Amino acid sequence: MSLPGLEVCLSPALLHLYDTTDRVVVIIDVFRATSTIAAALHNGAKSVIPVASVQECIEIGRMTTDAITAGERDGKVAAGLEYGNSPTEYPRSFIEGKTLVLTTTNGTRLLHMVQNAAVIITGSFLNLTAVCDFLVAQNKNVLLGCAAWKDRFNLEDTLFAGAVVRSVREHFEINCDSAMAAENLYTLCGNNPLIEFLRDSSHYRRLSAFGLQTDMEYCATPDLHPVVPILRGKELLIHS
Amino acid sequence: MSLPGLEVCLSPALLHLYDTTDRVVVIIDVFRATSTIAAALHNGAKSVIPVASVQECIEIGRMTTDAITAGERDGKVAAGLEYGNSPTEYPRSFIEGKTLVLTTTNGTRLLHMVQNAAVIITGSFLNLTAVCDFLVAQNKNVLLGCAAWKDRFNLEDTLFAGAVVRSVREHFEINCDSAMAAENLYTLCGNNPLIEFLRDSSHYRRLSAFGLQTDMEYCATPDLHPVVPILRGKELLIHS
Repeated sequence: MSLPGLEVCLSPALLHLYDTTDRVVVIIDVFRATSTIAAALHNGAKSVIPVASVQECIEIGRMTTDAITAGERDGKVAAGLEYGNSPTEYPRSFIEGKTLVLTTTNGTRLLHMVQNAAVIITGSFLNLTAVCDFLVAQNKNVLLGCAAWKDRFNLEDTLFAGAVVRSVREHFEINCDSAMAAENLYTLCGNNPLIEFLRDSSHYRRLSAFGLQTDMEYCATPDLHPVVPILRGKELLIHS
Repeated sequence: MSLPGLEVCLSPALLHLYDTTDRVVVIIDVFRATSTIAAALHNGAKSVIPVASVQECIEIGRMTTDAITAGERDGKVAAGLEYGNSPTEYPRSFIEGKTLVLTTTNGTRLLHMVQNAAVIITGSFLNLTAVCDFLVAQNKNVLLGCAAWKDRFNLEDTLFAGAVVRSVREHFEINCDSAMAAENLYTLCGNNPLIEFLRDSSHYRRLSAFGLQTDMEYCATPDLHPVVPILRGKELLIHS
């Protein structure tokens, strides 16, 4: 019996090279959309609705009961929205039972670009093991899609893809240089905290300028929020 | 005094994200266009003319004195051309004084995509140190451009970019995750022959099916052909 395939797409600008039809697609935006999604759902959010623009976020927020509108532009809560894009902003005491309407630049865009997938889930270090277990159980072809930064390759999303490859590789046929590279980069981290490896990355530098170091350390911690956010219609819900 | 910048572009499909104006751009197509270019020029070819199509190759070959037309499609000499895309096909006894008109799918395409560069050179392990010395001497912003495989990230071009980054990093300001990743991947090879690391890569597997293992080992050997091929008009010549 042949194994399903697994590939890694390093940037939304490369997505057209991959056939996503009937695949399990994992959207990866470690700093910080998919980390926030895992945290909010694990802490009891009813759902997360990812939207592309601030305007759409405001409109859907208005039409939705118990909605929280959230999103940042340039490291600050965007004008017209209520909350930001930090996983630590959404403890159970605040988010339980509410719907988080979230706009982010990179992760949301990639999510909306994917066509004809069997299923779309979101991945981050906060739900690494849950994502890996899900992929193995599905037994379907997989594409790990890095949201990157304005289409530029980034290290944190690639490292997460590498962590997944490392974990699930015996269950998949992998003939993809991006997957090999991602896994090797992840291996290079060894037993050191991931955040050590990420400190020289461009996104770490950018977000550090906004004082978000603690946020990034949080996002680099494995398995704090062990859920699988799965897209149903326009909403991300916990897969159960 | 601030240092010039250095970035790495992992695929032609990402080239639009980089401003190549007034930069030194290094075209990298390790398997095998830029390896063959280094070998042919070092062995005395008068020039190499990179062209996009087989038809153009034949036409320019007809109009050029002492021309050799070369290029492969699917691992074989393309119909209508005389020679292939192997660096070992061009010893001094054969190529000296001749003009090599070469068509390749990935490297040539990237070379023709670059706009407004200060200078375009080609790089491969065969001329690694010569390329690094050239970049340091120019003291200008640099873009290392991987030709990739049909726009897909590939390991061998990225490893070469990493070898360059490792060698020249103290002379450049580097704030580019692709450069970091490439350097780390190269570091991971350690003192092992590069070809060991490349054996699992998709391009190695593809070319192995055509019996080209010896060719790839040759292409992974540093500094056998220490020249800097530089684009002047439509020709690549040795920089002196």
